[in-house]
Amino acid sequence: MQPRFAILAERRFDKENAKTATGAIRYIPDQIVAVIDSETAGRTAGDVLGYGGDIPVVATIADSLELDPPPDALLIGIAPPGGGLPAEWRSMIASTLERGLSIWSGLHTAIGHDPEFRRLADEHGVEIRDLRLPPPDLTIGTGAARHTDAYRVLTVGMDCNVGKMTVSLEVRRGLTERGVQAAFGGTGQTGILIDGHGISVDAVVADFISGAAERLTLEAAVDADVVLVEGQGSLLHPSYSGVTLGLMHGAMPDAMILCWMPGRPFIYGGRYDWVQLPSIEEGVRLHEEAMAWVCPEQPSRVIGLAANTHNMTESDARRAIEEAGERTGLPAVDPIRFGMEPLVDAVMKAAGVSAAPTV
Amino acid sequence: MQPRFAILAERRFDKENAKTATGAIRYIPDQIVAVIDSETAGRTAGDVLGYGGDIPVVATIADSLELDPPPDALLIGIAPPGGGLPAEWRSMIASTLERGLSIWSGLHTAIGHDPEFRRLADEHGVEIRDLRLPPPDLTIGTGAARHTDAYRVLTVGMDCNVGKMTVSLEVRRGLTERGVQAAFGGTGQTGILIDGHGISVDAVVADFISGAAERLTLEAAVDADVVLVEGQGSLLHPSYSGVTLGLMHGAMPDAMILCWMPGRPFIYGGRYDWVQLPSIEEGVRLHEEAMAWVCPEQPSRVIGLAANTHNMTESDARRAIEEAGERTGLPAVDPIRFGMEPLVDAVMKAAGVSAAPTV
Repeated sequence: MQPRFAILAERRFDKENAKTATGAIRYIPDQIVAVIDSETAGRTAGDVLGYGGDIPVVATIADSLELDPPPDALLIGIAPPGGGLPAEWRSMIASTLERGLSIWSGLHTAIGHDPEFRRLADEHGVEIRDLRLPPPDLTIGTGAARHTDAYRVLTVGMDCNVGKMTVSLEVRRGLTERGVQAAFGGTGQTGILIDGHGISVDAVVADFISGAAERLTLEAAVDADVVLVEGQGSLLHPSYSGVTLGLMHGAMPDAMILCWMPGRPFIYGGRYDWVQLPSIEEGVRLHEEAMAWVCPEQPSRVIGLAANTHNMTESDARRAIEEAGERTGLPAVDPIRFGMEPLVDAVMKAAGVSAAPTV
Repeated sequence: MQPRFAILAERRFDKENAKTATGAIRYIPDQIVAVIDSETAGRTAGDVLGYGGDIPVVATIADSLELDPPPDALLIGIAPPGGGLPAEWRSMIASTLERGLSIWSGLHTAIGHDPEFRRLADEHGVEIRDLRLPPPDLTIGTGAARHTDAYRVLTVGMDCNVGKMTVSLEVRRGLTERGVQAAFGGTGQTGILIDGHGISVDAVVADFISGAAERLTLEAAVDADVVLVEGQGSLLHPSYSGVTLGLMHGAMPDAMILCWMPGRPFIYGGRYDWVQLPSIEEGVRLHEEAMAWVCPEQPSRVIGLAANTHNMTESDARRAIEEAGERTGLPAVDPIRFGMEPLVDAVMKAAGVSAAPTV
């Protein structure tokens, strides 16, 4: 049985800081009882984010337990750079375990490896699920993923935090709606939470990035006609580029969808303002080149562009998307704002699959 | 005090399989008492490898203890793909601990985390040193390494196992001989063993590759005019490319030396014969491009080529090196066979440092 979650997002309940929270609210809203954030308490997720409907925001874990039904697990709603636990959250997690709730976490710092938390969980008979914990038997990649019968599509990005997971999930949904057997390959804590399996490729031993990507791609490919592998990081982001390239060379995509935020001139976050982003057409070219390094004979192509325009007016968004489409000759859309159909069409055409007849 | 090592290379004492052994024999021969390999026992390291002089090869650990002086530590001499411990070596390691010798290892599988080995080491009061174990407090990279006063030179490779560590160490030696303050930044188990410090970037949490590279570069840069950072893997190797790119974007080299084996058409090892290697001039271009992704304003350049020609005749080697030099316009040499001077010249010119006057 899937747990009912309260999501801890204290003082961080926004789209930039609470990626795990916002992903869960968008994709598994039926499992979310409440969000915990004293700053926005009294409002709803829908008010704060623009989606999430009536899910209430409450000030404390105790408040969430007054709800009917109450949560039976606490989900850590953030995944900060470096992935550590904010110091001021320790006491909240301890008291949650004491109240008999499980903890689900996507932090790099494994909650279950903390002696105090481990002891409390054992005492109160509750579970700690560290979503980022890799399987113990990983090894290096071998290129085996390039032989799946399923067509492999990887989302890549001009930057982090531009919507790669969302695009993979939306295209999967669109394909499923048309009767195509489409699977999702989760590569990060939020994707794994939503889909129930996958491997957090940024948390494995560095030598095993492509091996982890290969394994999750092969597993997702069983019985699927198309696999949507969730991208991570960006080749252009100095902190995460290694994970991105290892993921690309392990998943061995037949095709890529390039995600970006129109108008963002630098890698996001003030500390990276020395990394100037290239044009979108240059972004297409460099991702295709990085795949060609290991697959010169069977090159992977970018087949579509996915914009994240949540901070733009509708007319600005439409103009930016149209311009990118013209400059690259590729289908381009903001799949959340304007629908994922152009990307679903592009994947079906590239994969050579057709819609199942509706009865 | 540095230990005296016996090196375990049972049935694997050759240049392809025993990288840790061969690196130690080349660079810290005074610390090596014996090599253990029943297949070549009775010969010397010099006979088997072509270097290593009179270091004896013996059949068993017991035999090595008969030598004068005897070893006080066993060094695991291999680092196989995946980094696991060969099953048949377990009993040898256990009996070594029982004899009161320390174990030094560069395997991914931490010897010190194995309950049986841990117990034996504690019982017999000996040390287990896992060279690949990362520091506990790593985090993501920030690009800070690009601000060192020291000039940063990274070795990169068209493939794995082509001599990146050796080239970095040889150029460091050449610079030191000319009175330049040159430091080595070790990034793998063998480099760390030889130099006494560094971080094994392929063993860290994947998200922290560039953070680890940044930290070891900053540490090596203190009081140095030039830092030679040891490369790992290859952008063209589907198993290791993620580590390579993360290392590049963390170390932020001012310049790169590209290492290759002339005449190798594919990534080494039968399982990778689908990865056809590009020309050397294309290799230069793609490494410069991958650095430009994060440093478009301050591009890093390949300033020299280092060939590994140990499997070629001298005339073939000279011809291949000359051709590569002509095609790229870069200084090219096999630094082991023909001397590292052209590369030392290239680094000094690029770094703008001059030889200290000899008194």
